[in-house]
Amino acid sequence: MTDVQTTIQTVNGFKVAGVHAGLKTDGALDFALIYSETPCVAAGVFTTNLVKAAPVLVGMDKLAANNTHIRAIAVNTRCANAGTGRQGIDNAHQTARWVAERLGISEYEVLVMSTGVIGTQLPMEKIKHGVALAADALGDNWHLAANGIMTTDTRAKQAFIDADGYRIAGIAKGAGMIAPNMATMLGFLVTDAALTPEQAQAALSSTAERTFNRIVVDGDMSTNDSVFLLANGTSAAPDLATFTSDLGALSRKLAQDIVRDGEGVTKFITINVTGTATDADARQIANTIATSALVKTAFYGEDANWGRIIAAAGRSGVVVDPDQMRLRVQAGENDGVDGLLLFAQGVPTGYDEAQASALMREASISIALDCGAGDGRAVVWTCDLSHDYVSINGHYRS
Amino acid sequence: MTDVQTTIQTVNGFKVAGVHAGLKTDGALDFALIYSETPCVAAGVFTTNLVKAAPVLVGMDKLAANNTHIRAIAVNTRCANAGTGRQGIDNAHQTARWVAERLGISEYEVLVMSTGVIGTQLPMEKIKHGVALAADALGDNWHLAANGIMTTDTRAKQAFIDADGYRIAGIAKGAGMIAPNMATMLGFLVTDAALTPEQAQAALSSTAERTFNRIVVDGDMSTNDSVFLLANGTSAAPDLATFTSDLGALSRKLAQDIVRDGEGVTKFITINVTGTATDADARQIANTIATSALVKTAFYGEDANWGRIIAAAGRSGVVVDPDQMRLRVQAGENDGVDGLLLFAQGVPTGYDEAQASALMREASISIALDCGAGDGRAVVWTCDLSHDYVSINGHYRS
Repeated sequence: MTDVQTTIQTVNGFKVAGVHAGLKTDGALDFALIYSETPCVAAGVFTTNLVKAAPVLVGMDKLAANNTHIRAIAVNTRCANAGTGRQGIDNAHQTARWVAERLGISEYEVLVMSTGVIGTQLPMEKIKHGVALAADALGDNWHLAANGIMTTDTRAKQAFIDADGYRIAGIAKGAGMIAPNMATMLGFLVTDAALTPEQAQAALSSTAERTFNRIVVDGDMSTNDSVFLLANGTSAAPDLATFTSDLGALSRKLAQDIVRDGEGVTKFITINVTGTATDADARQIANTIATSALVKTAFYGEDANWGRIIAAAGRSGVVVDPDQMRLRVQAGENDGVDGLLLFAQGVPTGYDEAQASALMREASISIALDCGAGDGRAVVWTCDLSHDYVSINGHYRS
Repeated sequence: MTDVQTTIQTVNGFKVAGVHAGLKTDGALDFALIYSETPCVAAGVFTTNLVKAAPVLVGMDKLAANNTHIRAIAVNTRCANAGTGRQGIDNAHQTARWVAERLGISEYEVLVMSTGVIGTQLPMEKIKHGVALAADALGDNWHLAANGIMTTDTRAKQAFIDADGYRIAGIAKGAGMIAPNMATMLGFLVTDAALTPEQAQAALSSTAERTFNRIVVDGDMSTNDSVFLLANGTSAAPDLATFTSDLGALSRKLAQDIVRDGEGVTKFITINVTGTATDADARQIANTIATSALVKTAFYGEDANWGRIIAAAGRSGVVVDPDQMRLRVQAGENDGVDGLLLFAQGVPTGYDEAQASALMREASISIALDCGAGDGRAVVWTCDLSHDYVSINGHYRS
């Protein structure tokens, strides 16, 4: 597997821009554009929320009609264009038309995406201004593009793989509303590898399932979540297994960065669940633990409150036997199997409280819950629930 | 329906006590005892968490064997006696034996219940001391008993109905871990009405379903939740419909008090969902809204962020059409149907932001979400998510 870099070099044939269109009031970058000099094979995965933002509905339609000739993706912040009805759909189309005009391509070759507050219409004059600025600024500065899609994110999220024969670049944004099935999460992945539409969709879908869909910040799933993959084929056709593995490594980096930069996050938690009848059972238990407000506040308080983890497993809906459970905690991001054993055979072990407390003070903590009844397993990445999360989300619109 | 009073007068044949056994370090009451001079018909409803505390397991067994001759219930705080294995079971039985010895009854007539931290063994010397103190203190002071079962509760929860022919008294405790299917929630209801075991269980089960199981603080479900009903039959057999209605009114009062006194709660929220295919669908949507961290922090921030409510409905797992939804908000505890219309036909209405903001500043707020597609309906009572919730649960064990 190729190393994942944190700075994006160039990817043959792609140009990007991040600009200030005036959407944010503090002068920060707020609009991004990704452009391909040649038509791309395109794939997408979208929120499963039944309340979908206008650009998601439009994007799904466009990709269904055309997944072989996509040339550009425009992204605005501050306004999710969700809960905006017919006018929201029209505005998404209008944004694509402006991008197409500026770039001299067809509007059917342009995807748009929005992130921000639900229920306000896009400020179309500012969007038009952003399209013009971004089209003029297209270049190789992926860092600006990664900044241009941020909302409450505090850091740009970017990843790059320079593999033998192809390159993959990705940028993403997250912050809140991060749930098991994506969230206020946008990801844009591009490669110069040559892929068929089917190969691109298969690689993206399996990757999203193992990365972007395995992160939990608060358990809420947004109306806008989308991840796109554009492949312009200016390089050769890759070995598909290797490519998918690389795409997975890159996406895992981006997904974990979203958790690390989640709203108010002070700790990165890796939840490993094993010993269930099926992988789906393990995942359901891991998600229940990851979304438990009591578990998350205990991590914030650096309290080795394993009882809340066991109790969350008990209410997950999966049949578990507390007497068969073994719970370990370990510092760092790992499978937790070498960690301190806190609970076994229905009772706490005689572990050293000082040792447990020291582990809980780590910035990255892994837990391993073995349910002792099968070969099912799952990993979910999550974070704690802090005072700052409440502050940020108590006043997001103002 | 008879008025629900907030102070408990006497119920024929029942004596209670609340004492300081030394479990809490601050001298507060920490142990309670409920005693009946004659054998009671008994009914119980218990947590559906598969990780059940020892007293829950013991209590379920005892009630299965004997639901016609229960004489006493002893309750300790500070220690949940959960995650305590074989020793925890033994300690629950030992507590019942001590109570039986002190009161001159059989241990099979004694139920015990615990609430507090998971994973520590009961401090049996203090429990023994508490049993002795409580047995000596038995009388009519229900307020002390209600105080004796509190954990992070800030107020005692008690309710009383003096009906034509019978009386019902109830005390409860709650605070955190309050989920759709009960929680760190204990309720003890007694009546002098004459009921058969089947009548008592039916009345309690249907009541719990409409009251204690309709409250959400944080979505976590505890290992200890239990509600008991004791009926000593010293009065006449009641009209069952009237009795069940009264029991429901009393339990609703206690359940709502649990939400109002939830950890860090600043607002009481009534969530009405209508217009679904089934009542279960409406309840699923209401629970998803009530457990959403984003919705709860928005209420805390007094932000009329209806987009988060619509988005929560969209990810609830119930098939909904955003274009058919109508969302209203109204001050007070009610069905919300006369409230300010925020969202309809897929878009926000032209409502007055100042008016919406004023409503969000109320201490009690009701929302009405009409999904526009059937006769299903449900009501759930919940609260906001505040800085204090995080503080309380970040450091509960210390």
